[in-house]
Order: sequence, then structure tokens, then C-alpha cells
Amino acid sequence: MNKIEPRTLKGFRDFLPNEARKRQYIIEILKKVFESYGFERLETPSLEYEDILLGKYGEEGDKLMYRFEDNGGRRVALRYDQTVPLARVVAQFSNTLPTPFKRYQMQNVWRADNTQKGRFREFLQCDIDTISSDSPMADAEIIACAAQALKKLGFEKFRFFINDRKIFKDISNVAIGAIDKLKKIGEERVVEELVTRGEYDTSEKATQVLLEIKQSTPTYWIEEVISKAKSLGVDENQLAFTPTLARGLDYYTSTIIELEIEGYTAGSVGGGGRYDNLIGIFSGQDIPAVGFAFGFDRLIEAMEEKKLFPPDLTTTKVLVTTPSPKLLTISLSISNLLRSNSINTEVWLDENAKLERQFKYAEKKDISYVVIPLDNETVELRSKSKSGKITKNKLRTDQLLEQFKYSI
Amino acid sequence: MNKIEPRTLKGFRDFLPNEARKRQYIIEILKKVFESYGFERLETPSLEYEDILLGKYGEEGDKLMYRFEDNGGRRVALRYDQTVPLARVVAQFSNTLPTPFKRYQMQNVWRADNTQKGRFREFLQCDIDTISSDSPMADAEIIACAAQALKKLGFEKFRFFINDRKIFKDISNVAIGAIDKLKKIGEERVVEELVTRGEYDTSEKATQVLLEIKQSTPTYWIEEVISKAKSLGVDENQLAFTPTLARGLDYYTSTIIELEIEGYTAGSVGGGGRYDNLIGIFSGQDIPAVGFAFGFDRLIEAMEEKKLFPPDLTTTKVLVTTPSPKLLTISLSISNLLRSNSINTEVWLDENAKLERQFKYAEKKDISYVVIPLDNETVELRSKSKSGKITKNKLRTDQLLEQFKYSI
Repeated sequence: MNKIEPRTLKGFRDFLPNEARKRQYIIEILKKVFESYGFERLETPSLEYEDILLGKYGEEGDKLMYRFEDNGGRRVALRYDQTVPLARVVAQFSNTLPTPFKRYQMQNVWRADNTQKGRFREFLQCDIDTISSDSPMADAEIIACAAQALKKLGFEKFRFFINDRKIFKDISNVAIGAIDKLKKIGEERVVEELVTRGEYDTSEKATQVLLEIKQSTPTYWIEEVISKAKSLGVDENQLAFTPTLARGLDYYTSTIIELEIEGYTAGSVGGGGRYDNLIGIFSGQDIPAVGFAFGFDRLIEAMEEKKLFPPDLTTTKVLVTTPSPKLLTISLSISNLLRSNSINTEVWLDENAKLERQFKYAEKKDISYVVIPLDNETVELRSKSKSGKITKNKLRTDQLLEQFKYSI
Repeated sequence: MNKIEPRTLKGFRDFLPNEARKRQYIIEILKKVFESYGFERLETPSLEYEDILLGKYGEEGDKLMYRFEDNGGRRVALRYDQTVPLARVVAQFSNTLPTPFKRYQMQNVWRADNTQKGRFREFLQCDIDTISSDSPMADAEIIACAAQALKKLGFEKFRFFINDRKIFKDISNVAIGAIDKLKKIGEERVVEELVTRGEYDTSEKATQVLLEIKQSTPTYWIEEVISKAKSLGVDENQLAFTPTLARGLDYYTSTIIELEIEGYTAGSVGGGGRYDNLIGIFSGQDIPAVGFAFGFDRLIEAMEEKKLFPPDLTTTKVLVTTPSPKLLTISLSISNLLRSNSINTEVWLDENAKLERQFKYAEKKDISYVVIPLDNETVELRSKSKSGKITKNKLRTDQLLEQFKYSI
């Protein structure tokens, strides 16, 4: 066979162990926090019938969606977000699900976006949603839960920008799309876009509309959401009513939320809102709903920038070397012992390799402890400190476990 | 908008919380066991260039693969297994990865298979692989790790069927494919297939070949693998040399393994083997490799049949009810307290709902403890026993935490 060039598609990524363990670290914290609020896990298929997804995300969404014909001639599409599949699930299993239905979901979504903007074509979303509650408490709880997640990840300063889509009731979806870019492109260019798109005749008129929006006061609904969020423990400074916040997606009906981390300038790390009409498309009957999604890649980037990852996320804690064929049995029994005491332990498999190679392996894999069996009863233990300094200790094999009790 | 019928594609599944939590239970045990042996997590993209996957799984594989043209006119394919993407990764990142490279991977794969056979078109695979070791210890460790995973899941009786592909050295891939079905369709029909496929002229000849295979003795290599597996703690009864074991996939070169659970008759719950030539397709240089994959859906089914799931996997432990708007603040502060003590606690969001509805909700969601604030200082605690019996207790709010210390 000819050699095939190993390569990945643009916008798609391999996560080698170094990256994968950072991802796991965040995923596990999010999962814990979500579950602590009573959100339960849901998984939906990667592929859906095309008509389930099409037309729910606006024109842009339809364009970026991965769609194709499957082997059976069905038009199918890859998951584009987790909200529309959730809406489908709620309609499909309305008799089975509890009311309200609070679920979290952490699955990949696919968008054939321009990768030059630093965007990926396959990425993880982490969502929480509460279905069948029309209480502002539901919106507030979503915010409180997202705030708690950020805290548990180690972030201290962040802010929820909150608005009510109803503020835009006299404004077209196209104009909302333009206003949504205010933060990114500035007022002047938004006004320009509003005029060139034919939304308003003159820049004066567009500027006037924009000014009116800027001066809007919170609706009663948003006041309620903000006050409930405070009662759920969210700090007042973390909640900012922002009348110019628009959010692109078509399906939002009232509350809209965007979450930013102070000092992290690449953009919001999450967003969401209320979408009281979406489920109706599938169930024939409107069901209120509110949700929030973390942008996982931005969370990781912000964690990196703020150095919030613990120094050692390596899952393998100990390497037991195999210095010679004669000592293999000893190496195996030591590693069995450690493993059965819940210490992740790798044993060197090749009984003929030089010790030097085994040390290098431990270094490359970032393993902090290396055990070298010396004879039937003694081992050398090499421990790497946080600064990378290696200390060597000779000890009796039966002392090893005791030693690790304090360090691992 | 017209109502869209909510439905899923044949062979694709939603996992509602009841199912999702069973999946999580198994995933977490597998992850722990894999990591305890030093396997580290890898993730690869769902979509690959078509030529990376095509032709690696035999004719059948190419047929069942999900392939299409993306928006940029590239031929792409959805992940079909985790071994070929791993081979690509090893070739692509050979300078970065440790040697040996031991990785685990738990991602979905897609196959447009006949769903009538009880097969799914999207399903999870859980793989461990060791790359760059040509020692039989590597094969043995894969077996030992898989055995440990089954034990931790609660299975007691299971068996690894082991063979060496080299036994078939004078036999064509087509004939191996037929022999692979021996267990499923019986000797008579295998002989028939060998003849009709033109592999042998007469049934006598085919029967003779089959007999010779049946009488084969273990190769030296397989003897080594089996003896090393024993030295790694695998029970002798769990290791069965099986000369008629063939396994369908084209890429295996020597060791082949299938894992069966006693009393679970739907088929093997996992399989694997050595594939020393696959990585060479991408790297231009052969690199030895051995791996094993659990079939996740069968594991779940076997766990169900043998009743190995813990009785309560519900993630939400407590529901704090909201009996009236006046008591909402109390409900919130109780739930905050429990949550900050690591007890997953849901608070009822709608301050105007009848208590009866809140109780029903707890029942539907399988929540074991329901707290009903009575006034500023007292609560009623309703606890559900395993048999479903509900006990009611009146206690001071500040005793609640103490109470849960013993029960949750």
C-alpha cells in the first residue's frame, strides 16, 4: 500500500494526553456543579434528520451546518448546538420527562465556520437548561449555576451581561443582528450597516434608534431575574443590565445573557437566554424554556491565561521500572500492590530496556515518582518536586506504600 | 412555522437521564481502571479525510462508513473505529508522543449497519492500546487491564479467547472471514461458505482444513502472552487458547482476543489484538501495536442482565420544596447550605406550586430525600427507603446537615 499522509481536517483537532487531561479537569468540575443544582445528564445523537435542525439558527446557521445524504438516501445533519436537539427531545418524550425538566449536556457540535477567526469546526459545548418553568427563578438559577461553575474553576472576576429581547420588539431580526455587533465593530459601523442593509433611511434615524436602545431601562421581567439571581447568591457586581446586548440566534424570546471574564478579551465564555417558542415547533404547543451554554475552548484559554490549572494533572503517578529480566516479577508485584491501593501505576513492560530509557520515558510522561527495584527487598524511589528537582531515596519495598500515603 | 415531527434516525439514540447515568457509571469505572495502568486519554476528531479511513476495515467497512463531501468539497468520513485514527495520530505526532505510547479513548463511532441485527449506527467504543512495544507483556497487560475493568464493574466469570493470526498464514482473508463465523453459524455452514466462495473445491477439503485449524497448538508467541497475562494476575480459567478464533478486521497481524461474559449470550463484550503493520501505512515505517476495545452497549446490557448497577445512581439527592412564597427564602438558604456541603440539592423554583406536585416531581426524578420547610426553624424530612417506603421526620433546620451526614 502507498503511504498515506497523516493529517487532520482544518478546524478539527486531536487532543493528545496533555490537552485531554485539561479538558477532563474542566468537564468534571462543570459536571459536578451542574449536578449539584439538580441538572441531569442528557445525550442526543450526533446526526439528526435535516429538517429538525434546518431553519432554527437563521440563514448563517443553515449555511454553516454539516448536511449530507446518508447511505439510505435520508437528508441528515450533524448537531449544530444542543438546544434544538433538546427541544426535539422534550417534544418527543413529553410523557416520560419530569416537569420541570432540568438537564445538562456536554457534547460536540459541528459548524463549517471560517477557521481563520480562530474558530473550530468541531467543538464541545456545555449546556444547562430548564424546561417548563416560566418563573424568573429558572433564569436566575441558570445564572447562579454558571457563576458557581466559574468560581469552582477558580475565576474570581466575571460578569453576566443581561438583557430582555422584548426591548427590540419594534426592530427587525436583521437590525438586531447588526446591533449584536456593537461591541465588536463599534457604533459607527453598526449605524452604517443598519443603513446599507436598508433598515433605516438615514444614519440620523439609525443613530437615534441606537440611542433609544442604549437609554432603555430594564423591563420588569429582567429586574425580577436580576433580583432572584442575587437571592441565589450571585454578587450584584456580576450582574449588568445591558440594553444593547442582542445575541445572534433567532430563537430567543426574552432573557438573553452573555458571560465575560475580566481580563480575558477574546470574547464571551458563554451565553444563553429564554426561548419560549422553540419547543412548540416540535410539540405543537409552546413550552417555556431557558438555558445557558459554556464555550468550552474559551474557558480553557481563559484558564490557561489566568494559570488556573493545577500544576500536576498527570494521571499516571508512579512508574515502576524493570531494571532486568530477573527483577521483572518484583516490578510486577510492586505495581500490583500500588495499583490495588488506588495509586495509578505503570510498570515498564520491556524487561531488556536500559534504565536510562525508562527514566526518560517517565520524564516525557511527566510521572512524578519512579521506583527502581534493587533486589527482592529494597527499592530506590526517585521523586520529582514541583520545581523539577529529583530526590533519591533507598527504602525497603514494604515501606513504599507508607511513603506514598503522604505524597500522592 | 409548521409543526415538525420530533423523531430520531434509525440506529441513533437519545439517552435520557435514566440511561445516561448508567453510561456514566461504566465510563467512570473504565476510565479509572485504564488510568490505573498508565493509559492516558486521547481524543481524535469525529471527521477525518476519507483516505485516512478508507480501505482499512475491509470491503464491509468501506460500505458501512459514513462518507460525504463537506462544504469545501473535501471527501470526509465519520470515525469508524478508534484504532485507525490512533495509527494516524502516532504517525503524525511521533516526535511528541512518549515511547511506548499507552492511550485510552472513549468516543463514538458511526457505522451504517443493519439495525435489525440489534446494532446501532452511533455507538461508544472504549479502547486501550499500547504502541511501540513488541513485547508479549504489552498484549498481556491489555488483557489484564480489561480483566480488571470487568472485575471493577462487578463481573465474576468471563473468559478471554485468544489466538494467533499467524495460524492462518496459508489461508486467504476471505476464508478467514468465513471461519470467523464458526461460533455463530456452525461448522456445516462455514464449510458450505468456504466452498461456494471458491476457497476450496470440495467440502471434504474445506472440512479437512477446518479440522487442521481446530487441532492447532498454541504458537510460542501466544504461549508467552498467556503466561505473562497469568503473571499479571489474570486467572488461568479466564484465558482460553482458541485456534478457530479469527476476527473479521483486516489489520490484525498476530495476537487476536475476544472477551465473553459467562451467561451473557448476545456475543463478545470486547475484542482486540496486535496490528504491527497498520501505523506503517501512515508513517512509512512499521510500528508494533496492540489494543483492545470494549463494546459499550453490550457491557451495559450484560450489567443489566446480571443486575450489577448500584440501586441508586440518581445524581440529585435532595429536593427542597417551596411550600409558599413566604418560605422561598428559607428554601433557598437550606439548599445553598446543603449544596455547599457537597450534597446535590435541587430547590423547587416556582413559589406558587402545590406541594403535591413537588412530591410527584421528586418521585418521578427518583430523589430520595424531600425537605419541606415548615417555618423559619423547622422542616419535615421525607426519606425514601430502598423498598420505596417513605418515612417522615420533623426536625430543626440546623439538624438537617447532621442527619444527611449519615445517610448520603
